[in-house]
Amino acid sequence: MKKITFLLLLISFTGFSQISDEEQLKAIYNQALTNSKCYSQLEYLSNTIGHRLSGSAGAEKAVLYTKQQMEQSGAFDKVYLQEVMVPKWVRGGKEEAYIKVQGKKIKVPVCALGGSIATSKNGVTAEVIEVQSFKELEQLGTEKIKGKIVFFNRPMNPSNIEAFHSYGSAGDQRRSGPKEASKFGAVGAIVRSLNFRLDDYPHTGATSYGDIPVEQRIPTAAISTNGAELLSKELKQNPKLTFYFKQSCYQEKDVLSYNVVGEIKGSVTPEKIIVVGGHLDSWDLADGSHDDGAGCVQSLEVVNIFKNLNYKPKNTIRVVMFMNEENGGRGGDKYQEQSLKNNENHIFAMESDSGGFSPRGFSIEADDSSFSKIAQWKSLFEPYLIHSFMKGHSGSDIQDLTSRRIVKAGLRPDSQRYFDYHHAGNDTFEAVNKRELELGAATMTSLIYLIDKYGI
Amino acid sequence: MKKITFLLLLISFTGFSQISDEEQLKAIYNQALTNSKCYSQLEYLSNTIGHRLSGSAGAEKAVLYTKQQMEQSGAFDKVYLQEVMVPKWVRGGKEEAYIKVQGKKIKVPVCALGGSIATSKNGVTAEVIEVQSFKELEQLGTEKIKGKIVFFNRPMNPSNIEAFHSYGSAGDQRRSGPKEASKFGAVGAIVRSLNFRLDDYPHTGATSYGDIPVEQRIPTAAISTNGAELLSKELKQNPKLTFYFKQSCYQEKDVLSYNVVGEIKGSVTPEKIIVVGGHLDSWDLADGSHDDGAGCVQSLEVVNIFKNLNYKPKNTIRVVMFMNEENGGRGGDKYQEQSLKNNENHIFAMESDSGGFSPRGFSIEADDSSFSKIAQWKSLFEPYLIHSFMKGHSGSDIQDLTSRRIVKAGLRPDSQRYFDYHHAGNDTFEAVNKRELELGAATMTSLIYLIDKYGI
Repeated sequence: MKKITFLLLLISFTGFSQISDEEQLKAIYNQALTNSKCYSQLEYLSNTIGHRLSGSAGAEKAVLYTKQQMEQSGAFDKVYLQEVMVPKWVRGGKEEAYIKVQGKKIKVPVCALGGSIATSKNGVTAEVIEVQSFKELEQLGTEKIKGKIVFFNRPMNPSNIEAFHSYGSAGDQRRSGPKEASKFGAVGAIVRSLNFRLDDYPHTGATSYGDIPVEQRIPTAAISTNGAELLSKELKQNPKLTFYFKQSCYQEKDVLSYNVVGEIKGSVTPEKIIVVGGHLDSWDLADGSHDDGAGCVQSLEVVNIFKNLNYKPKNTIRVVMFMNEENGGRGGDKYQEQSLKNNENHIFAMESDSGGFSPRGFSIEADDSSFSKIAQWKSLFEPYLIHSFMKGHSGSDIQDLTSRRIVKAGLRPDSQRYFDYHHAGNDTFEAVNKRELELGAATMTSLIYLIDKYGI
Repeated sequence: MKKITFLLLLISFTGFSQISDEEQLKAIYNQALTNSKCYSQLEYLSNTIGHRLSGSAGAEKAVLYTKQQMEQSGAFDKVYLQEVMVPKWVRGGKEEAYIKVQGKKIKVPVCALGGSIATSKNGVTAEVIEVQSFKELEQLGTEKIKGKIVFFNRPMNPSNIEAFHSYGSAGDQRRSGPKEASKFGAVGAIVRSLNFRLDDYPHTGATSYGDIPVEQRIPTAAISTNGAELLSKELKQNPKLTFYFKQSCYQEKDVLSYNVVGEIKGSVTPEKIIVVGGHLDSWDLADGSHDDGAGCVQSLEVVNIFKNLNYKPKNTIRVVMFMNEENGGRGGDKYQEQSLKNNENHIFAMESDSGGFSPRGFSIEADDSSFSKIAQWKSLFEPYLIHSFMKGHSGSDIQDLTSRRIVKAGLRPDSQRYFDYHHAGNDTFEAVNKRELELGAATMTSLIYLIDKYGI
């Protein structure tokens, strides 16, 4: 017994514990790169199930598949579904659009924005007024806007280094553009896709009419960046051209869906919970492989790695596949509601919802002292080219999660390519690189390991 | 005059100079992301010119195009061609291969390795012996190898974080495998493509017969990773299966080609030279957009950015498009030869030849004091997510460049996807992301700016 005490003292004095963390991280990355399941799980989610828009058959299949994967892994003490009512928006038939100018019809790629109403069966045809901002909209006023289609065409700012900053500052056009345009009597809205590239993919995403009465809502579509450039160019030459678009999307009643939850009971302090997740729903134009199939399978991989390394977490680890991040956030809300109801004590939450690209670090919601503690671990991550520990947004599904004292983090992969695929028809399995996905999973696992071991 | 002296003193005491570097780097990145030419130049090199294997029509066109781009930019004081004789290897017709097993012929994708001889017109058909290493080859010996095709099938090690380490440790099979196999009487060699992914692209690259007499040389091809997996699986079931492959490649006489050089005379110490470049030649299976069209246009962009910012370098800046890196390295050798002949004083050399992916930092060849000086600038790069300053290999074309006291660096982009494309049919323009390419150019420009300003 004395010998053991001496050994423990020796360990704490010689920094053996630090060496051991280095070894553990090495083992974690090694597992991820040589023995992971996440890439084949993503292939199944993407290529066998396909898109997973809330309320769709794909979303339902994805719930069953990930629940089954959790159960079959043998890694969890408990796997269960958490009921949540979700909105069901349906795209309907393929959208059509063209620019009508000097007797010619020039087809352009569009897609309805999520939550939009349909056009009439004959579509909408109207003159177009191009704006860069809501301020410009206001300056133009009802007189110049009434009866027209408002075309929001402010590109994402290319000069930001972090692509999400550009998304943040251009996103108002998609989220609120149609609502704002309808206030001035517009008959439709067209929004430039939130994509740095010039290409032919329209990018969908949620728009909100806010408190605009139903009868005043206007149909609204995203146009590809190439389409937007063309429309803008044609408008300069022919301000009186007309634009036609047709879409048949509709909102159904809310339907029952689920968050999928897998839980490993903590071996020392089971009342303390660490949650890690991604969102299982996706947009419907492709398979949502980056957004957010990647985050789901990476979260599953965290537990797979722990199991392969025979690591028994001290705290309870919960893996959550959140439902309905894209057009409602109901899954995140439900998780939070249940957590409050059960008076749960979450100490840490992590979400991966920025794509399956090469990981660079974390953005962290924490007070200064918790942030400093996490930042102290930076050197452990350097061999894995993970350098970026910044304060910032964690993730949509966990942003409102409150607890006695909680730290939240989002995995931050390289962001440069994310908006090439985001909410578009090319967000497919082929766009995800196996190693990059695995490195992201290892990076998540490493931080969870350290937090589980040392607390916050 | 006194006022100016006071101002200069003030500047040096208040650290204004440091702030100015921050502003300058910000301006450099901003230029690269909003006003660069490199992406459209790459599009021309890739989609209009195409592959640029040494001695090919494409290589010749690329020499003229980049020379013209340098001249038209108005940024250089002098643009010239540096004559260099290069080897000319020609692939000939499309290669064919199949596994013949139990009466079936299963086609597999192969391509001749660069420098390989052809098979006879009827191809080679022989039994296959699979090996993982040269040691295994030696243990098997002539008795078991003679008359067979040796199949080198050691995969790239997935557990390395830095993909180039795995390339380094698996590359012996391609570079020297055929030579080693021929010593034991093999009639051909098949090498697993140096690619982490399982896909259908065979990856070419140079092989060397070394001092093996011409009559003992054996034809040698790369097989796609999927093909290699299949062949290995079939071999386990049917060790007596045969493999057929046919290729008609040949070596012509050396031909005249060129390095393309653009020079800005230094405003303060013109005798000190900073060189930045990439290699203009590529393999012939695709456009060589990552390898190394990207490095070429990024090097051109360095000077474009300086011009747009009206920055006059103190030292002479030379942009070099090196010829023949892939299968001879003659351009690099010639540049070094001329530099020695002219008794030139190179203080810094940088090459970008690791793909046009998101930049992470530099690998640097320098003594400790020079390395420390460069590493002091790390914090200036952090806003651009450039964190990695490591000692290591600079670039093939500059590795032998000697001078009185020279520091050399290679741009290190994210390496995870590089070997998906390297030397393969999918190394095309579409595989390069505009922002990632531009960020790489800005990162190169920033380090060159700092070295130009402060010396080493």
